[in-house]
Amino acid sequence: MTKAVVLLSGGLDSATTLAIAQNNRYDCYALSVDYGQRHGSELAAADKLARCLGAREHKTIKVDLTVFGGSALTNKSIAVPTQGTKGGIPVTYVPARNTIMLSLALAWAEVLKSYHIFIGVNVMDYSGYPDCRLEYIAAFEKMANLATKAAIEGAKLSIHTPLINLSKADIIRQGISLGVDYSLTVSCYQADQGGRACGVCDSCRLRRAGFELANVPDATRYKPYI
Amino acid sequence: MTKAVVLLSGGLDSATTLAIAQNNRYDCYALSVDYGQRHGSELAAADKLARCLGAREHKTIKVDLTVFGGSALTNKSIAVPTQGTKGGIPVTYVPARNTIMLSLALAWAEVLKSYHIFIGVNVMDYSGYPDCRLEYIAAFEKMANLATKAAIEGAKLSIHTPLINLSKADIIRQGISLGVDYSLTVSCYQADQGGRACGVCDSCRLRRAGFELANVPDATRYKPYI
Repeated sequence: MTKAVVLLSGGLDSATTLAIAQNNRYDCYALSVDYGQRHGSELAAADKLARCLGAREHKTIKVDLTVFGGSALTNKSIAVPTQGTKGGIPVTYVPARNTIMLSLALAWAEVLKSYHIFIGVNVMDYSGYPDCRLEYIAAFEKMANLATKAAIEGAKLSIHTPLINLSKADIIRQGISLGVDYSLTVSCYQADQGGRACGVCDSCRLRRAGFELANVPDATRYKPYI
Repeated sequence: MTKAVVLLSGGLDSATTLAIAQNNRYDCYALSVDYGQRHGSELAAADKLARCLGAREHKTIKVDLTVFGGSALTNKSIAVPTQGTKGGIPVTYVPARNTIMLSLALAWAEVLKSYHIFIGVNVMDYSGYPDCRLEYIAAFEKMANLATKAAIEGAKLSIHTPLINLSKADIIRQGISLGVDYSLTVSCYQADQGGRACGVCDSCRLRRAGFELANVPDATRYKPYI
């Protein structure tokens, strides 16, 4: 089997990405990044998902992006918006997050002698997100193929983005067909310790709309006051 | 003044790079990465250098690359070579290290609204190092200019590599002309707590030869048994 490093946040998209990679018969090494996000329940979810979906191994690496701040997710004094998206890039955007995560995945891939990285980016969610676009991913892949000892020795690394052009509803339909238990996933920006969602942040709204459009019961566990 | 993020390891090259950036009238934000290297004296050196060379601010961010290992610098069971370089990429190569460091610098740059990153890479040291080559740096810069909100808004980020084609002797001459106190820098892969160098690892050998070729007294503080 071919080894792949799969970035796994614990949310709906990355869980589906892992299920797709497993279904494509990759030997999956799931990587989560503890970057100082507002809550740890996403990372606990990643751990469960890696096991349930059959990843070979799961590692969580810590890189404290609260040192830089600049986002509602890495600076607790910036509130998470709960009134719906307004267009443009929201304050939950974390500067260079995908670049940092892909760089860490690249490091592990090189150590594992793996030439495949999966990331669940998606252009549809927030059309303004710079590091979710195909041209960005292509540029990262090109850079990665100059960056490592493996690349110099002739290996060709591929970045796989199986969700990039799917709607949230399509992602959910595909995940369900692959047996993903979405009640285990945590997408909410401000989930509680137990992983229960607020229902009103942008991430919750997108996810909830996805279940509706997919005509599938919403598996999300919400906080009791919703 | 124009803001710049300067990667500062605490070694000779990055100290010189910071001195060059300061001399070019950038307002310098020095960034060190605690990636689990074998000793902390390099980071202590970075802190002193940032102050002595007049950086506006200095941050150290922790990202524990020992989680992946794969290098003599991140896995203590792999010995640091002390018999001189043998050609090829040595075991002290850390997978994707410069990509990870540049990604972190990119994150801070975006938060600071800075469009300049300095890194002291140098092709001459180990000709085999993939992530010290100009074509790699150019590819990173291209990717970075697709990665961020700042880039989408039209800002153009530049990665500056003032040492890329210099010999170690040239770097030392330039640093001395700019007043760098090299006794504060730590290049050794296995320095002691006080920052004293072993004298025999590849990094020590290259540095020592640099001082000799530059015809400058070697400012390095060596361990007493050398």
